[in-house]
Amino acid sequence: MDFSIRAANVEDCKDIARMILELAEYEKIAHHVKITQKDLEQDGFSKNPFFHGIVAEVPEQHRTKDGHTKIGYALYFYSYSSWSGRAIYMEDLYVMPEFRGKGIGKALMSKVAQLGLAAGCGLLNFTVVDWNKSSLDFYLNQGCTDVTTDLGYHYMSCKGEALEHLAQP
Amino acid sequence: MDFSIRAANVEDCKDIARMILELAEYEKIAHHVKITQKDLEQDGFSKNPFFHGIVAEVPEQHRTKDGHTKIGYALYFYSYSSWSGRAIYMEDLYVMPEFRGKGIGKALMSKVAQLGLAAGCGLLNFTVVDWNKSSLDFYLNQGCTDVTTDLGYHYMSCKGEALEHLAQP
Repeated sequence: MDFSIRAANVEDCKDIARMILELAEYEKIAHHVKITQKDLEQDGFSKNPFFHGIVAEVPEQHRTKDGHTKIGYALYFYSYSSWSGRAIYMEDLYVMPEFRGKGIGKALMSKVAQLGLAAGCGLLNFTVVDWNKSSLDFYLNQGCTDVTTDLGYHYMSCKGEALEHLAQP
Repeated sequence: MDFSIRAANVEDCKDIARMILELAEYEKIAHHVKITQKDLEQDGFSKNPFFHGIVAEVPEQHRTKDGHTKIGYALYFYSYSSWSGRAIYMEDLYVMPEFRGKGIGKALMSKVAQLGLAAGCGLLNFTVVDWNKSSLDFYLNQGCTDVTTDLGYHYMSCKGEALEHLAQP
């Protein structure tokens, strides 16, 4: 199937917001999602963007029954490792279920890797849920390392009242 | 003990590089560290920095036997969560052993939280090694969530030949 990968622009935020929710439903954490199309527009496409995105598109003849042609996306931002320096972090990688198994996910991830290397990043980081065996196998087959299993690193978060409290001097 | 927390500048890179290695030795992964003072100078203090830093300093009279007054640091960068939007990521948090238990680590983390909130970030993320029980307890006591334990998220990396290969179209 024909598809193309390109940099996301502000007009893609509606579809990205839709697919973020689809991904969260798949990961069974849709209740955690507070992001809106407007948030994405402001945070990704203003002067100092907090993230960048790429989208996968299919031609009109392959559009979904709901009329979608934007059928996959990845979000990323530049980051840093105190071990190895410049890094790129892939926040999300998603392809709509009916378009899986066609190399679109691999093409999106490949593009993120290219963008990272072009910016001098020697490291691509991301997270995956441990029950998502097909994704985990996909990543391991690409030569990725499970840092949590191998080195015991746990991913931690602080938010809401805990974050407000932590910020008190 | 008196101490102060301030934004890192390019002159701090020598001490930050030293403390990165001390932290890695503590975490038993010193062989993974490839970062140098020069990398930090270039990557953190050029036009589009990949990270920001803060350092903890003590007065001259409390300097270490090796003459150090910069005795702790944190590195951070702005990031993004597709669930909750703007986020700040704390890459490292370190206080030299002889200065622990005096609230310096808490003050560094508090500063990162303040900087995050000031930039509109509702989320602070970081990683911790699971065998480092004292750090893990410290973070949990601050109200942080262990996303790996609670939701099964594993932290993944791709680098070196695997990253180069992944970037092939």
